[in-house]
Amino acid sequence: MSEKRPDSLIANKGLELLTFGTPNGHKASIILEELKEAYGKPDYVWQSIHIGQNIQKEPWFTEKGPNGRIPVLVDHDNGGLGIMEGAAILSYLTRHFDPEHKLSFTQDPELSLCEQWVAWQHGGLGPMQGQANHFYRLAKERIPYPTQRYVGETERLYGVLDIRLKGRDYLVGDKYSIADIANFSWVNVGYFAGVDLEQFPNLYKWWERINARPAVKRGVAIPNEPTITNEPYKRRIKEEPEFKQKEDELAELLKKAKEQYDYKFSAP
Amino acid sequence: MSEKRPDSLIANKGLELLTFGTPNGHKASIILEELKEAYGKPDYVWQSIHIGQNIQKEPWFTEKGPNGRIPVLVDHDNGGLGIMEGAAILSYLTRHFDPEHKLSFTQDPELSLCEQWVAWQHGGLGPMQGQANHFYRLAKERIPYPTQRYVGETERLYGVLDIRLKGRDYLVGDKYSIADIANFSWVNVGYFAGVDLEQFPNLYKWWERINARPAVKRGVAIPNEPTITNEPYKRRIKEEPEFKQKEDELAELLKKAKEQYDYKFSAP
Repeated sequence: MSEKRPDSLIANKGLELLTFGTPNGHKASIILEELKEAYGKPDYVWQSIHIGQNIQKEPWFTEKGPNGRIPVLVDHDNGGLGIMEGAAILSYLTRHFDPEHKLSFTQDPELSLCEQWVAWQHGGLGPMQGQANHFYRLAKERIPYPTQRYVGETERLYGVLDIRLKGRDYLVGDKYSIADIANFSWVNVGYFAGVDLEQFPNLYKWWERINARPAVKRGVAIPNEPTITNEPYKRRIKEEPEFKQKEDELAELLKKAKEQYDYKFSAP
Repeated sequence: MSEKRPDSLIANKGLELLTFGTPNGHKASIILEELKEAYGKPDYVWQSIHIGQNIQKEPWFTEKGPNGRIPVLVDHDNGGLGIMEGAAILSYLTRHFDPEHKLSFTQDPELSLCEQWVAWQHGGLGPMQGQANHFYRLAKERIPYPTQRYVGETERLYGVLDIRLKGRDYLVGDKYSIADIANFSWVNVGYFAGVDLEQFPNLYKWWERINARPAVKRGVAIPNEPTITNEPYKRRIKEEPEFKQKEDELAELLKKAKEQYDYKFSAP
C-alpha cells in the first residue's frame, strides 16, 4: 500500500491481493470485504498494481499469476499459492472462508446455477464489455464496426440479466451471492462502456440494491476511490458540462455506428 | 439426432446435450466421452443445434440456457436442471460423474489451480480466439486493427500456455484433467484463427498428446466430423492448392495488419 512501485510481495502470512481499480479487481476486493463483514475475517493486505506501468508482467508477479493480469490472490497460509482469474478467486475464497455459506451454495440447483452465472460473467459479460470499453472509448481510432459489435453484445448481455432478474432480487436462489458480486462488478461500470443502464429496469434496481451494501462500497474503493463506476459517472454528467459534452460525442458516434450496421437490440 | 429442426428436448431421463461443432461444444462432448471411457457412463443423448438457424434463441432452448448459446446440458435426473457455460458444465459433470476424480481434483493446490486454468480458458482464450476468428476470417469486412489485436492476443495466450507446459505433460498436477479439456478445445482450432501452433513447441506436443486420445476423437466428432480443427486443416493445406491459396491470402492480410500497428509478440 506504499507509494513506491511494487517489486515484491509484502506479506508472509494471511492473504495478499494484487489488484487495481478495474471491474475484475473490484470482484476480488468486494468478496474479501463481504467475508470480513460476515465473519470478521479474513484479514488481508493489498497492493495496487498500476497496469499502465506493466508491473503485472514482472517475474515476481507472474510467478503467482502467470497470465500477467490482475487480480491475483496469494494465500501465504496455503504454501504461498497464487490464484488468478476472478471466477477462481471467488471460488477459492468462499471454499476457504465462507463456512456458513452466507455468500455461496452447497446444493443443487443453486450450487450449479451459481457456478453458471459466475462463468457467464467471466466468459461473456467481462470480456465483451472490456472490448466495448476499448472501441467505444479507449482505442486511438474510432472504428464503427467493432464499436457497435461490442457495445451491442454488451447490451444483449445486460438484456439477459434483466430477463433473469424479473421477479428476483438476486441472480441465484433467494440470497446475495458470488454470482451477484461477479456480475455487479461489470454492471457497475456500464455507462463507461456506452450502455444506458436505465434501459434495463430489473437490472437497474438490482444494481442499486447491491451498490448500497457497505462492503461493496468498501470493496469498490480498493485501491482507490473509483471514478469510472456508475455513481461518479452520473454525478459528473450532471455537474460537469465539459464532461457531458465529451460523453455526448461518444454516444453520437455509437449511434451512427449502430445505424451504419443496422444494429437492432435483441436479447437473449 | 434426427434431421429435422430441433424444437424440443428429446429425452426424459439421463443427460441431454444441446450442442454444435464449435470449440465450446467440443468441451462438453469431450468430457462426456472421457467419463464414459473411464466409467462406462453416464449415458447421454445429444441434439445438433444449428447456430446459423438461431434454434438456440427459441423459448424451449432458452428455458434451459437463458443466454441463447450452445452448449447447454440438461440433467433429466436432477429435476431437468439446465446448465450453460462450458466451465460450469465441466464442473457439474465431474462433481456428479467423476467419483474417483480421474479427470478432476479434490485437494489444493491442484483443485484451485484446475479451477484457475479452466477459468483462464473460459474468460481469456475462448473469448479472444473467438474474436480472432471473427476478424481474421468470418467478418464481411477485413479491418486491420481488430484483426491484429485479437490474433495477437490469442498468440500471447498460446505463449502463456507454452510457458506453463514447459517440462509438464498436463496443465495441472501430474494428470490429464478438465483444465486440459477446456484449453484443448480451443487450441484444437488454432490454425482457423490464424495462429501457427508450431511456433509454440511445448503446446504443440501437448496438443498432439491430447488429440491422440480416443475419447477426444469421439468427442470432437459430435455432432459432425470436424472440418475446422487442426488435423483436417493441415491436411487440406497439403492436399488442396485452392484452399492453401485462400489461407495464404488471409495470412498475408494479417501480416500487413501486424506491420501497420507495429505488433510484437510477447507473453505473458
